[in-house]
Amino acid sequence: MKQYYLGIDIGGMTVKGALIDEAGIIVKEGALPTGQEGGADKVASVIAELSKSLNPGDGEVKGIGMGCPGLIDSKNGVVVFAANLKFNNVPLASLVEKNTGLPVKIANDANVAALGEAKFGAGKEYSDSVLITLGTGVGGGIVIGGKLFEGNKSAGAEIGHMIIEKDGSPCTCGCRGCFEAYSSASALIKKTREEMAEHPESSMWKTYTLETVNGKTAFDYMDDDYTANKIIDWYTDYLAVGITNIANVFRPQIVLIGGGVSAQGERLISVLRRKCSKLIFGGNSYAPVEIEKASLGNRAGVFGAAALFMQ
Amino acid sequence: MKQYYLGIDIGGMTVKGALIDEAGIIVKEGALPTGQEGGADKVASVIAELSKSLNPGDGEVKGIGMGCPGLIDSKNGVVVFAANLKFNNVPLASLVEKNTGLPVKIANDANVAALGEAKFGAGKEYSDSVLITLGTGVGGGIVIGGKLFEGNKSAGAEIGHMIIEKDGSPCTCGCRGCFEAYSSASALIKKTREEMAEHPESSMWKTYTLETVNGKTAFDYMDDDYTANKIIDWYTDYLAVGITNIANVFRPQIVLIGGGVSAQGERLISVLRRKCSKLIFGGNSYAPVEIEKASLGNRAGVFGAAALFMQ
Repeated sequence: MKQYYLGIDIGGMTVKGALIDEAGIIVKEGALPTGQEGGADKVASVIAELSKSLNPGDGEVKGIGMGCPGLIDSKNGVVVFAANLKFNNVPLASLVEKNTGLPVKIANDANVAALGEAKFGAGKEYSDSVLITLGTGVGGGIVIGGKLFEGNKSAGAEIGHMIIEKDGSPCTCGCRGCFEAYSSASALIKKTREEMAEHPESSMWKTYTLETVNGKTAFDYMDDDYTANKIIDWYTDYLAVGITNIANVFRPQIVLIGGGVSAQGERLISVLRRKCSKLIFGGNSYAPVEIEKASLGNRAGVFGAAALFMQ
Repeated sequence: MKQYYLGIDIGGMTVKGALIDEAGIIVKEGALPTGQEGGADKVASVIAELSKSLNPGDGEVKGIGMGCPGLIDSKNGVVVFAANLKFNNVPLASLVEKNTGLPVKIANDANVAALGEAKFGAGKEYSDSVLITLGTGVGGGIVIGGKLFEGNKSAGAEIGHMIIEKDGSPCTCGCRGCFEAYSSASALIKKTREEMAEHPESSMWKTYTLETVNGKTAFDYMDDDYTANKIIDWYTDYLAVGITNIANVFRPQIVLIGGGVSAQGERLISVLRRKCSKLIFGGNSYAPVEIEKASLGNRAGVFGAAALFMQ
């Protein structure tokens, strides 16, 4: 009998699910509104309903893996705190187990995405990888020896909150100088807006205004416009420092760049490779740290959730 | 029959050894000149001689663990590079195995010290600990789930080379702003010397000169002298940032402070606890990160080397 795994990606608005076979092929996909206004029981029943709709005809589901935003105690299957879902100490894994009769595992969504990339995405040739997600914040996850590394009570892997410039820019966490405060898409947009305001001569004004500026703006003009080029230089300088810190302490075989900004592909990655090669301790020849774009996009979550059963 | 482990701490001048029983008690100790001028074969025979002199009368030695400075490929037992010993790609573990007929393991000395503290020192109640050694540089090691974490090809755990201030003070590694450039004993001494030169009114001049200043100087006067107090505030600010970064990414249960500066004990540690409690991501209540002084001193090396067989 064929064996399958269900990967569930819990978002504030939508729960996405995928039925994945042992080779890592998505066989079926689906989504339902999260129903978080109905509380944890409602969300658990939505997940059960989605799981049922994804049931394979020709085999058995070995388990349901779930990725969830917030602080997740993955050992005990508990959502300790998730602001978007208004969850506090919700034993979501056992709730979904009761609703489905299947074994259930849960972990933080950023960590799960890292596991997805490590098992089925751009990191699949490597045992040790780190995913850095450049979006509203800087998230990420760490895979060591093919297993998710989460720290004590799953409270680690907060790579966005490494301080890379003491007394630097304020971060949403209350500290100053965090990696996230420089390398998130939000930080890039803020910097682009500031520079555009200061440089009315910049070509970026041809197609963007202070309202429409986004994470692409400076990349679009980096080859022709001095200000745009300066922004990308600033942005990749900080990003290279954050990647270097990860390389120096974890020494993974590969660092994967995901999130909105990673859509720039080689325009971004090639600059990071060049800058990191000068910064990484001991150079990059004995134990090289590759830098690549993550490859699974939004599906990293469902892949990684299913992979919680494949570690 | 009783079982023992031999822990060997290889230094540039001296090789120290200890015979340790299963309860972690040192039964015998000894030391010999390293003999590095005779090359790798000589050093291996010195280690064999020392091991023989530490042979127990009443039991068997299960293995010889060794801590060695430099870049060590612990998986293959090879000293990839060790400047002090002038070793390049020396298969030291197999050389010592041939000389002794015993199984041999080797790892970097800072990593081994971390394992020693984790198994037998101030970290023994915890499965996840990080040792930060504040000496000439900032070294350290990471123990996760009772096992040494070294990164790919043992090239990770370079916590002294996390960049905590982009474009900051120059580091011996060639980068700028490394943790080590602010938090080593050398950095503290440099800062103390600079401040003394600028402040002839400082009480530190009562018992120190620019020649005799050391890592204790500012601590000695921190309670009575404005300049000394300012130096300690500066030093602990940076040290707290480095500890915070380690806490945020590894989330160990405990961070142990070793090396010369740690002799200040609670004068140092209490300040670090206070500063880190304000910086650590998500606060320090859900998954607390304790901060304590390491307890094994110079013996962390031999303990940890023996513990390479107890992971």
